[in-house]
Amino acid sequence: MISTNNPRIKLIRKLRDRKERQQTGLFYIEGLRIVAEALQTGAQIEYLVIAPGLLSSPFGKQLLQSEAARSILVIEVSDETFLGFSNKDGPQGLGAVVKQKWATLDQIRKRSATWVALDAVQDPGNLGTILRTLDSVGGAGVILLDQATDPYDPSSVRASMGAVFSQLLIKTSLQEFAAWNHANPIPVVGTSGTAQLDYHQVKYPFPSILLMGSERQGLLDQHLKICDMIVKIPMIGRSDSLNLAIATAIVLYEMFNQQRV
Amino acid sequence: MISTNNPRIKLIRKLRDRKERQQTGLFYIEGLRIVAEALQTGAQIEYLVIAPGLLSSPFGKQLLQSEAARSILVIEVSDETFLGFSNKDGPQGLGAVVKQKWATLDQIRKRSATWVALDAVQDPGNLGTILRTLDSVGGAGVILLDQATDPYDPSSVRASMGAVFSQLLIKTSLQEFAAWNHANPIPVVGTSGTAQLDYHQVKYPFPSILLMGSERQGLLDQHLKICDMIVKIPMIGRSDSLNLAIATAIVLYEMFNQQRV
Repeated sequence: MISTNNPRIKLIRKLRDRKERQQTGLFYIEGLRIVAEALQTGAQIEYLVIAPGLLSSPFGKQLLQSEAARSILVIEVSDETFLGFSNKDGPQGLGAVVKQKWATLDQIRKRSATWVALDAVQDPGNLGTILRTLDSVGGAGVILLDQATDPYDPSSVRASMGAVFSQLLIKTSLQEFAAWNHANPIPVVGTSGTAQLDYHQVKYPFPSILLMGSERQGLLDQHLKICDMIVKIPMIGRSDSLNLAIATAIVLYEMFNQQRV
Repeated sequence: MISTNNPRIKLIRKLRDRKERQQTGLFYIEGLRIVAEALQTGAQIEYLVIAPGLLSSPFGKQLLQSEAARSILVIEVSDETFLGFSNKDGPQGLGAVVKQKWATLDQIRKRSATWVALDAVQDPGNLGTILRTLDSVGGAGVILLDQATDPYDPSSVRASMGAVFSQLLIKTSLQEFAAWNHANPIPVVGTSGTAQLDYHQVKYPFPSILLMGSERQGLLDQHLKICDMIVKIPMIGRSDSLNLAIATAIVLYEMFNQQRV
């Protein structure tokens, strides 16, 4: 057994911090389901960490003996050490330090599927939930514009329910995205409360990129300018906006419904 | 100025605790927008609490002079005292202790609109987000079945963006709800991953009650038994489920789209 002072164990705690994740290009995941997803999608796992006393499930033991896990370094720690860095309420005794994976704009053309571009998304839970929904409709990935939250934040990873591994992630600026889109004219669909078109009464191009504004501001003029189509989601209540992940899902499912007719 | 030891100020801190909210039937809200919503919807406000040094916005000052606020007790505290109990990152110097409002099953017949029934919803953020979405589609309210989280939890109130005031809230058991529904046959629509009907290819009755399962288990047999129609939301990704608030929103907007044709 190795101790809390081991640098690999110390790193796990440090990876809660965005700066540390950025500098190392790593992130930490925990739980049977998410580690299984990492193994199955071929994520690059630096090392697994297990607490044998907590890892009681047969599924967990099978996972460790799987082909994908066999060549990976496994670090055994005491239950106490594990509980010391665990983020979870019901720790399952299995975690992994994983290499982040980032895609580039030129990969958009290679995946003929729906993409979501998010301007300065702030809430990691929203980002993870959007990844999860995008996975469900067969989407390709997310393009993070400007000052966005980190998809590898523990709250985002948790909310994504594994989709952080299956969806491609691109980080860029509005300026670069606009320049790329100019040279690669894949239709961009924006949403705005003041748009004329009802999101439910238009025919969406496929593939397309759904561009969503930030939680606070929605889409700004500079974003609306690069849209090929701007739609609104009607609302008849007292509130003038929907939660970002909800609004994204409503349009994604409308697009998906049209694709699968 | 009154001090931190004042019982009304002490109560604000205590109201973070569910037990205290249950025993007193009160909850605490903070911020200009949500307090404005409470005033505008006629919520029963026990007292307002203000920190003059933090309350710089003209909108906040107008609020306090409004007709609705005039007869309400206002407690002034120092900025320091306010920051001591504030839940917010950017405290705006205005809060309120508000009386909870609960509706009963017999009110369902009086509001010919969509209702959502939630079995044992666990996450207050999900519950608040569902209230917010329901407000947007002109829904009536939420029926909380069995061991549900508290709609007056600060995370739920925050996520609801004020809809906790405009939507009716009913707390009951599955058994009572089933008995009531038997005598008052308003159609119940359930969702399940194993249903035959595609949610997008059915015609929904109006009004109806959308019944959603908990985050962990979905709808159980005893819930499916009381449904008049069970639909599934198709998914083609790696994941076999959507976030609860997302799944609810997708069906709510489909119902809403049919209503507004």
